[in-house]
Amino acid sequence: MSPVPYDMTPAVAPVERSVTLLGATGSIGSSTVDLIRRARDRYRVEAVTAAKNAAALAALARELGARFAAVADPALYDELKTALSGSGIEAGAGPEALVEAARRPADWVMAAITGAASLKPTLAAADRGAIVALANKECLVCAGTLFMRRAAAAGATVLPVDSEHNAVFQSLASGRRAEVARIIITASGGPFRTWPIERIRQATVEEALKHPNWSMGPKITIDSASMMNKGLEIIEAHHLFAAGADEIDVLVHPQSIVHGGVEFVDGSMVAQIGPPDMRVPIAHCLAWPARMAGATRLSFDKLASLTFEAPDEVRFPALRLAKAALTTGQGAPTVLNAANEIAVAAFLDRKIGFPHIAALVEATLDASAARGVLREPADPDEAVAVDHTARSLARDLLPEIAAKAF
Amino acid sequence: MSPVPYDMTPAVAPVERSVTLLGATGSIGSSTVDLIRRARDRYRVEAVTAAKNAAALAALARELGARFAAVADPALYDELKTALSGSGIEAGAGPEALVEAARRPADWVMAAITGAASLKPTLAAADRGAIVALANKECLVCAGTLFMRRAAAAGATVLPVDSEHNAVFQSLASGRRAEVARIIITASGGPFRTWPIERIRQATVEEALKHPNWSMGPKITIDSASMMNKGLEIIEAHHLFAAGADEIDVLVHPQSIVHGGVEFVDGSMVAQIGPPDMRVPIAHCLAWPARMAGATRLSFDKLASLTFEAPDEVRFPALRLAKAALTTGQGAPTVLNAANEIAVAAFLDRKIGFPHIAALVEATLDASAARGVLREPADPDEAVAVDHTARSLARDLLPEIAAKAF
Repeated sequence: MSPVPYDMTPAVAPVERSVTLLGATGSIGSSTVDLIRRARDRYRVEAVTAAKNAAALAALARELGARFAAVADPALYDELKTALSGSGIEAGAGPEALVEAARRPADWVMAAITGAASLKPTLAAADRGAIVALANKECLVCAGTLFMRRAAAAGATVLPVDSEHNAVFQSLASGRRAEVARIIITASGGPFRTWPIERIRQATVEEALKHPNWSMGPKITIDSASMMNKGLEIIEAHHLFAAGADEIDVLVHPQSIVHGGVEFVDGSMVAQIGPPDMRVPIAHCLAWPARMAGATRLSFDKLASLTFEAPDEVRFPALRLAKAALTTGQGAPTVLNAANEIAVAAFLDRKIGFPHIAALVEATLDASAARGVLREPADPDEAVAVDHTARSLARDLLPEIAAKAF
Repeated sequence: MSPVPYDMTPAVAPVERSVTLLGATGSIGSSTVDLIRRARDRYRVEAVTAAKNAAALAALARELGARFAAVADPALYDELKTALSGSGIEAGAGPEALVEAARRPADWVMAAITGAASLKPTLAAADRGAIVALANKECLVCAGTLFMRRAAAAGATVLPVDSEHNAVFQSLASGRRAEVARIIITASGGPFRTWPIERIRQATVEEALKHPNWSMGPKITIDSASMMNKGLEIIEAHHLFAAGADEIDVLVHPQSIVHGGVEFVDGSMVAQIGPPDMRVPIAHCLAWPARMAGATRLSFDKLASLTFEAPDEVRFPALRLAKAALTTGQGAPTVLNAANEIAVAAFLDRKIGFPHIAALVEATLDASAARGVLREPADPDEAVAVDHTARSLARDLLPEIAAKAF
């Protein structure tokens, strides 16, 4: 026994972990598979799912020796079935098949399906008490209270995959939740971090798509430019860590090396630092509560100069809107998210300018409050209904907002 | 129960902790008292000791309601006894009284006596299985193997008070020791961080005493200028965390805000960040495993710009010498420390120049290896004997080194 009371138990639990990958062929799914390939003896793959790519899914299911593979699009059942023929791997298709994949008895489920389609499968994994590595935002943003309550009731464990929340989670190990003074998530600040507000108002789609650090899809890259991604992350942190909007601080950190942390009441801050590579937080979740040999080491050169600054809620109103939605509560975060999706799509289609994104979100929040569609969803269908109503509202408001001059 | 498995137990253990302060009137002792004053209902003071200041010790013992007060200098017994008269507080004086203070049944002992005098009292606290907040370097540098072995045998808990080791300790909570790839301690780099080697060779006492961040005594300030303080901290980290010299990295970080951390095998680094105020690590030790409301909050302004660079072992040979002493093992770290104390005293007395400090340490290490005084000490008396022999050797070598031109 060591007199310094750090954890001296063996590095890796000797038991095999069975895993299911919801969204196995996407970016997060592929990174997870990459890590599983490095430690094949420790992971047995129960089920894999994909949205549309039946051929890639079948190949992956064969490679990993999965027992069940499901594709979201029901029209692709025959293609998947044929691609799996002779493998002994069961095939499924359609939304119910995704839920079945989540229900299969895997110890650990990567929830990397995006959009409203993620709600039911992720809840199914939580409802049976699995360890859920949560990589979709909808479960928390659109149904956070519901999701966390059901996970708690079933004894499920929710591990945040998102680099910022994963950093907070790792930092929380140094103390008790009740001893936390502040939760900190960092933000790159996006491509417009240093731009004056007049210049941001004129930003083009091409300019907004140039993210300085991470390579991501267009929707999330625009959210990074508007900082709505941080707004949504504040809402996620609220649910994950049972923290009020006033306990969660965003720090702009353009180097994206320090991902987040916790300030304790005694003045110590503990933070997680790592390369901007999603395999790092995924590896943390995959091996949790142990740690696995990882793909990526941080070069100390990356630490040469780290800067932090307070975010500017005037130039980036998304932060203010997200906190307001959190304070309003009930369905407001769902409305925020839905209106933002409509707004970003319209911006990418060049139907509105960059400042119209936040304006449409704000107008939709106001309109939904006036119409009373802000009820807290009691089940996934209600969450989807609030989302649909909010999208309709946003679409209706779009021409009026598009006509605004900034 | 929360589905996110952070520690949801109450913030503060409801039981009173009895504490003894060895070195109660020094800088670390005073900071500890400052924290105890803020939470008087949670700490009962068993014993307090001081080197020479009997009047201040008596006043402190009365204020804190201690049961025993001891002064290191035996000649001061009567003064202390008189100052405590009518209080019901027992008085003691001399080295044995310090050991008695440590033996008294306090749950927690702050070991903030400096120098060789710290060995026996600190070992006495460890030997009875106390929680020992270790703020002296001698126990680890001069008797590390012995001290950690005795602490382990007695079931004692050693908490590092030094900001760098405390940071590593806090960061280790995020994983298991076996999952650690690197232990990182930061260094301010001292006043000569950016100086060319020719300029460092000409450094005056006044220049070496200008520490950029911390206000400390002259000995440790000179150690900071030579980076011997980091060399000694590498040796301390070796004993505290059972880490080889090759597992411990020093990063020069002039802002002294990130104090240290751990890189895990999965690519995550976890670090502790805090203001350069010793009350932060002391508070961590005092309340451990809980956390207390602290004196100091880090202003986010302090994070504005943090820089990190690799240390230069050519301009700062102390780092190289300390690692070599650790690799040699046995009594070599004791020799390093003893020779450095002689060298720094000679530099402060203007008998040698700045580069002669490292030269004297190196010459003493070489001479002691040749003479075979490097045996691992088996008890505190042997550790003191190695220390004395090394000091004699260093003194003998001083004229020869002083004559060297740099």
